[in-house]
Amino acid sequence: MSARTTGQVRVVGSGLLGTSIGLGLRAADVDVVLDDASPSTLALAVDYGAGRRALPDDAPALVVVAVPPDRTAEVVAAELARNPDALVTDVASVKAGPLAELAAAGAPVERYLGSHPMAGRERSGPIAARADLFLGRPWVITPHGRSTDEQAARLEALALDLGATPVRLPADRHDDAVAVVSHAPQLVASLLAARLVDAPAHATDLAGQGLRDTTRIAASDPALWVQILTANAERIAPVLEDLRDDLDAVLTALEAPSAPGAPRALADLLAAGNAGVARIPGKHGTDLKLASLTVLIDDTPGQLARLLTEIGELGVNLEDLRLEHSPGAPLGVVELQVAPEAASELVADLKQRGWRVAEWA
Amino acid sequence: MSARTTGQVRVVGSGLLGTSIGLGLRAADVDVVLDDASPSTLALAVDYGAGRRALPDDAPALVVVAVPPDRTAEVVAAELARNPDALVTDVASVKAGPLAELAAAGAPVERYLGSHPMAGRERSGPIAARADLFLGRPWVITPHGRSTDEQAARLEALALDLGATPVRLPADRHDDAVAVVSHAPQLVASLLAARLVDAPAHATDLAGQGLRDTTRIAASDPALWVQILTANAERIAPVLEDLRDDLDAVLTALEAPSAPGAPRALADLLAAGNAGVARIPGKHGTDLKLASLTVLIDDTPGQLARLLTEIGELGVNLEDLRLEHSPGAPLGVVELQVAPEAASELVADLKQRGWRVAEWA
Repeated sequence: MSARTTGQVRVVGSGLLGTSIGLGLRAADVDVVLDDASPSTLALAVDYGAGRRALPDDAPALVVVAVPPDRTAEVVAAELARNPDALVTDVASVKAGPLAELAAAGAPVERYLGSHPMAGRERSGPIAARADLFLGRPWVITPHGRSTDEQAARLEALALDLGATPVRLPADRHDDAVAVVSHAPQLVASLLAARLVDAPAHATDLAGQGLRDTTRIAASDPALWVQILTANAERIAPVLEDLRDDLDAVLTALEAPSAPGAPRALADLLAAGNAGVARIPGKHGTDLKLASLTVLIDDTPGQLARLLTEIGELGVNLEDLRLEHSPGAPLGVVELQVAPEAASELVADLKQRGWRVAEWA
Repeated sequence: MSARTTGQVRVVGSGLLGTSIGLGLRAADVDVVLDDASPSTLALAVDYGAGRRALPDDAPALVVVAVPPDRTAEVVAAELARNPDALVTDVASVKAGPLAELAAAGAPVERYLGSHPMAGRERSGPIAARADLFLGRPWVITPHGRSTDEQAARLEALALDLGATPVRLPADRHDDAVAVVSHAPQLVASLLAARLVDAPAHATDLAGQGLRDTTRIAASDPALWVQILTANAERIAPVLEDLRDDLDAVLTALEAPSAPGAPRALADLLAAGNAGVARIPGKHGTDLKLASLTVLIDDTPGQLARLLTEIGELGVNLEDLRLEHSPGAPLGVVELQVAPEAASELVADLKQRGWRVAEWA
């Protein structure tokens, strides 16, 4: 794979994001040098193959600052001073603050252009890093009054080299957006998961996929999130205040659920939830509806391989696949998603070949 | 497959649950008769193969009432009267109310034993039904002072015939449990998704897996959920009141995020979220930790089949599998979960065979 990114890239900070960027760029044969305040973290990232250790006479064309949010502005300023010919970017989750801080401190912001890859994991550190972390994810680039189009194009090249989809958005619109699509959901997941702390085991034993999905991100790192929430507090608060107003209406309805207006209040909230979730674009960034089908297989890897081989023979491309099986059951459930126009023929063909297929719209 | 359930089963109500029960029992060769207030819904369920149409001289040994929650007690009472020799159960999501209503109305509750399969989908009706809906899910049976152990055993046989895991729990403990693991999460997902109704498109375009997961169940049917929430209102309210107290603390912290105590308040909530999510048992109903590994493949079905064939040849059993790929990218990402003791050898073997493998703990 030949890289769009030219010249040396210096990555400062070898956590999940910095190490993942290094791994991805190295896979594209970019010259990557790494630095980290912690020698042991740096050594790990180098061992993982994310790049080589920075040397005094390195001459990076691009510096990527991937340090915790509360140190971002300070490290960006230091990197601007240290590398007078380089473009400096960062990957922090909040963008207006660092830019304002740098401008106020008189830093040469004409060489700074912030960005934010919308990727992460519940786990952190170089060990959790992966070259494919950014694959198919939006990578927001936040142009400002003193940045240039050529600089934005260089960051777009970086994003594309890592498999991400570049998106240009001013810093304050970015921060408003992540307040509602990322920061509020994080807090709401934590608020919900906190209800389980004192729940009896016979309750948590009944947990289904709904509870798992609604609380999964509550496993995220508190220290990192306190920084993010603090940095974007004024934009998150209005979202949660609106939520509290709706919650108060729900609580009033639950106090007297048969009172006039109570069923309507609950129905309105549930309908608003329907409307809200419908606004999320599909997995592929489009509203393309896929057809789902479920195949029952013996719970052995050989069976699944045989199924996929036969689907391949039938010339059908799988859009998604999920495997589920339970401890006692001798069966596995494979959920496949395919293009709608391929579905009915695939179902018929698989049934004819003896597979147990359930289908729904 | 030979069924544990003996005698004829009458399923009243041909929605998602009733039709799925019929499909599952028919697959085990149980004699199933169906009834529904709507002739067209009944005709659909019969066409789907969920059982045959009920006739006047049917003599069911077991009646399963699968009607909307607000009609459950009334229909159970009618079925008790109509089938004087049958055990009658229901599948409604709230259990203490119907039992109390029946007892108050003088119904022969010694032949009624409530149950609740913890399964559902965002879609409803017979078309969404599937024989495997209950596979691996808990099926709660709620014994009461006038039900017998033999009756509970018959419902356990029904649950096992449908692949579910039977759990015995008194009705009020069940209702407390579902308030926290099912009903509160539904409302919280709706409250969060409602924030997206007025969000700009450049915000929803940045939606990642976290937002998708936390809001997925907000797509559920409002009419059904108003009934469930109304029936269990007094047990859901305290859960949401606790959540509102925590939310108020978060809002106070967000108003002055640098004030003494504010970072601590946010960290405490995030840590409680960590602790809460850790209490959810693993996918397989145990706390077994699986090892994850990621393999990059060309985005073709043949590649995936070849990968799984080779894993089968290596004698490794897949515990879970997820496939993700993005529109522009020529690569697919396969996330595999295997027993921890098998992981490192599998990674080495796959790498040796030329697969591109990333691994993490």
